[in-house]
Amino acid sequence: MPEKIPSDSVGLVKPELHHFDEPLTLRSGKVLPAFDLMVETYGKLNQAKSNAILICHALSGDHHAAGYHSMDDKKPGWWDECIGPGKPIDTDLFYVVSLNNLGGCGGSTGPLSVNPDTGKYYGPDFPIVTVRDWVNSQARLSDRLGIEKWAAVIGGSLGGMQTLRWAISYPQRLGHAIAIAAAPKLSAQNIAFNEVARQSITSDPNFHEGRYRDYDTSPGKGLALARMVGHITYLSENALRNKFGKDSAQPGSGNSNFGRDLRTGDLSFGFNIDFEVESYLHYQGERFSENFDANTYLLMTKALDYFDPSVDYEGDLSKAFVNSACKFFLMSFSTDWRFPPARSKELVENLLRAGRRVNYIEIEADQGHDAFLLPVPRYIEAFSIYLQRVHEELPHET
Amino acid sequence: MPEKIPSDSVGLVKPELHHFDEPLTLRSGKVLPAFDLMVETYGKLNQAKSNAILICHALSGDHHAAGYHSMDDKKPGWWDECIGPGKPIDTDLFYVVSLNNLGGCGGSTGPLSVNPDTGKYYGPDFPIVTVRDWVNSQARLSDRLGIEKWAAVIGGSLGGMQTLRWAISYPQRLGHAIAIAAAPKLSAQNIAFNEVARQSITSDPNFHEGRYRDYDTSPGKGLALARMVGHITYLSENALRNKFGKDSAQPGSGNSNFGRDLRTGDLSFGFNIDFEVESYLHYQGERFSENFDANTYLLMTKALDYFDPSVDYEGDLSKAFVNSACKFFLMSFSTDWRFPPARSKELVENLLRAGRRVNYIEIEADQGHDAFLLPVPRYIEAFSIYLQRVHEELPHET
Repeated sequence: MPEKIPSDSVGLVKPELHHFDEPLTLRSGKVLPAFDLMVETYGKLNQAKSNAILICHALSGDHHAAGYHSMDDKKPGWWDECIGPGKPIDTDLFYVVSLNNLGGCGGSTGPLSVNPDTGKYYGPDFPIVTVRDWVNSQARLSDRLGIEKWAAVIGGSLGGMQTLRWAISYPQRLGHAIAIAAAPKLSAQNIAFNEVARQSITSDPNFHEGRYRDYDTSPGKGLALARMVGHITYLSENALRNKFGKDSAQPGSGNSNFGRDLRTGDLSFGFNIDFEVESYLHYQGERFSENFDANTYLLMTKALDYFDPSVDYEGDLSKAFVNSACKFFLMSFSTDWRFPPARSKELVENLLRAGRRVNYIEIEADQGHDAFLLPVPRYIEAFSIYLQRVHEELPHET
Repeated sequence: MPEKIPSDSVGLVKPELHHFDEPLTLRSGKVLPAFDLMVETYGKLNQAKSNAILICHALSGDHHAAGYHSMDDKKPGWWDECIGPGKPIDTDLFYVVSLNNLGGCGGSTGPLSVNPDTGKYYGPDFPIVTVRDWVNSQARLSDRLGIEKWAAVIGGSLGGMQTLRWAISYPQRLGHAIAIAAAPKLSAQNIAFNEVARQSITSDPNFHEGRYRDYDTSPGKGLALARMVGHITYLSENALRNKFGKDSAQPGSGNSNFGRDLRTGDLSFGFNIDFEVESYLHYQGERFSENFDANTYLLMTKALDYFDPSVDYEGDLSKAFVNSACKFFLMSFSTDWRFPPARSKELVENLLRAGRRVNYIEIEADQGHDAFLLPVPRYIEAFSIYLQRVHEELPHET
């Protein structure tokens, strides 16, 4: 709970639900007859409507990117490190829009919503949504908000993939695409981890083929396990080492700074938790599974797996960006092994081949993929400098 | 099935069960009143009994390291690439002993054995066994076979950890310790993956707290999932890429060499398997779970987690090797991210600080951790050269 709102916070914020009546045809061919998007905004839209920034969230994100919903909140929104007055996405300069994507569990239409065709919860019947579908729904939101062109569309990880899709699908509707810790598509290893996560969920006896709500239960253990797997891939080996002792892991009762201090007294010699990293993962998994919907998790992993803008261009990614008109800014993190710098460099190369303007920086950071959510000084600095330039270049503000 | 036994195979082999009556006190303090070890041998022991090599197996290994049990076998033993006439561990030169470790499911005393105290299967009551316990049981086997000193003790991964423990616990009883793709102890990330694997198994509704045999079932799905997680960590990103198309994954029906060819027709737009890497993992997981015991898998992961010879030396690993008398040979593989070259280098540094003689080579190989099981030419060559030298140095053969 914030005793008082920090001065660099956007403060207390309130999400708004936007209803869209026009049917949305998805990439699968299925149609959502209507849909809702849960949206938060921070800062003020200028009269020229030129200073709007769209935030795209990653696998487990939602519309609540910054600030607090109430004074009882333990934590601010998920990207509060980067959004606020004086922060990289400076709400004194920009009007920031953040939404929960379709298929999400934060209030937008998703598995927890009622399917108008049946009068029941969608649950597992919610159609597979792709990054392209999300961007199409976000374009509808742009229309609703009267924003013809975003100053920038910004996202990390799966969010970064949405910014790339914006540059392809709506080339005239954004000035800058900022993709952080992203990739042009998943590697086989990425997909493998996603499939393990999905199997964890669907193997849980409480999954009931996705209809767990009908049984008044949820596949909490499976979702926690999926999150544990994911969490390992978000953190670098260094991050884990730093968290759990100088020399990798420490036993649960450990007090040594060096080594794991395996004196017999410290070990369970059973299947209890012996090392801090285990209890940390359990905690992360359990906390997540209390607050997230398993069907949404499944959908998000499929959206990741399916992302590959090159498929419409015979596998030539550069051709996907030939009509893009925005400038690109990519950032990656040295210890990110989920979407490592090499994947961002693939993007840079293809953007250059397409004749696009692109800035790229690899940030030295110990925190792995999660670094994009954290106050890494060099990252915050580079991010701020770029967005100040974006602001300076904005069409004259009235 | 081999139509005929290849000329560089040890041929048809038969395991032998050795019974040990004297109680074995484990590191946990628990006592095995008696135990069996399932053993295979290849080649001939010379009269001086100086040409014996002990093979230590890794997480999922057993005594069947080389050759065939019958002409119906589809595959030879797990290390057949390295053991046989003219192979690195040359059975024309050496007498090779391979055993199933305590806690295993290959015939040695383990969870599938009857607990003499209760007359029932041990199941989850089988005590936690450590690398040290295994080496102590292997020393008993050495006595039984009349082998005072091994020409070499050799192992990869968890097997390599056993060779290191031999050098510490029985310094006079081996000439060479050969540890391949090993580590001085697990990293926090390694432990995290092991804990995910354990959770996969114990969360399976058929686990029944380890008493699944009483219910005439087994936690097959959980064990398969554990193996899937493990398998991802055994393979490098490169190995996966090479397996599943030039450019990472390919769709199930894919025929493109480049990209994943996400034409709508190829994708399930559901939770079926879309990419080959998924079906590959499922196949690996399911095949493994049909042939391995879940309680054994749990025990093996704990043996890995607990391994850390430095704990008896205030965290100073080099001190562990001060009394070692053997020579060391370490090999690592460039793309192994489970136990990467850096972990072998930690070992090298500590061995040097302890004044030990050590040879080390990092092998360029695309296959990740699994490379130690594969016919990587440079690896086979280095391994062969080293063991030829070991043979040349042997005490005069009579």
